[in-house]
Amino acid sequence: MAAPRSLAQRLADTRARLENDVDLWIASAHEDQPWLVPISFVWWEGEIWIASMGGARTQRNLTASPVVRLALGELRDVVIIDGRAEVEPMDRTPKKVLEIYAEKQGGDPGAWADSLIRVRPRKVQAWRESNELDGRHLMRDGRWLDEDEPDGT
Amino acid sequence: MAAPRSLAQRLADTRARLENDVDLWIASAHEDQPWLVPISFVWWEGEIWIASMGGARTQRNLTASPVVRLALGELRDVVIIDGRAEVEPMDRTPKKVLEIYAEKQGGDPGAWADSLIRVRPRKVQAWRESNELDGRHLMRDGRWLDEDEPDGT
Repeated sequence: MAAPRSLAQRLADTRARLENDVDLWIASAHEDQPWLVPISFVWWEGEIWIASMGGARTQRNLTASPVVRLALGELRDVVIIDGRAEVEPMDRTPKKVLEIYAEKQGGDPGAWADSLIRVRPRKVQAWRESNELDGRHLMRDGRWLDEDEPDGT
Repeated sequence: MAAPRSLAQRLADTRARLENDVDLWIASAHEDQPWLVPISFVWWEGEIWIASMGGARTQRNLTASPVVRLALGELRDVVIIDGRAEVEPMDRTPKKVLEIYAEKQGGDPGAWADSLIRVRPRKVQAWRESNELDGRHLMRDGRWLDEDEPDGT
């Protein structure tokens, strides 16, 4: 088992993953019924954007209750993000988000999606093996742990 | 993008993954709050067994409501399993399950866990890229799609 990563290394790895990964797992729930699907995402200005369709169960769940848990990475190199989701109609989505989406996915999400799910992280954890469970918290209450001050956004 | 796999190939790949993978994602819920964690598992006689602790949120959720969704694999090679969970005390767990667990994990789950979560799959889906969304169902109503007859269990 490799030595546990420092906080700085985990932050760097997690930010790289948010910038570069294409897909994540999104978990939502309705009345004791969990829902979990893999889906593509964009990271932009501290938020995660996920193109979605109105009829999809994830979007229905999150419209009724915004509590969401996201997971990036592989099973022994996880990033887990808790946040609140807001569902935005496609025409209110920032142009830059759509551009990054098209670059990453190779297509315009407007071709199939009618909405974007926007998640502002409140809590972020990252670990690989059990020796990284200590120190797994990278963000608490919406604030990265290496920030001297709240970012005010 | 590779050509879509046949049903037979997906069944073979999925069974190999159930036998050989060490970890999966387990999604549970309480009211409208999703929960999602990576955890180790054993596949034995058509069921998934997951060592767990009484205080853990997954176990609390599943004791109150048994609906569970599991995901194996990577984000572009997924296996998604819907089922019902039963929480069994460790001393009622079949010895063989504990042996496989110890082999896979390199330790006795009784050292840290007090229960096992047992999941009998009802529905299994597997796909890699979007061209595999058609034909992604491998099990429906608890029955593998290559079975000629219901297995009656």
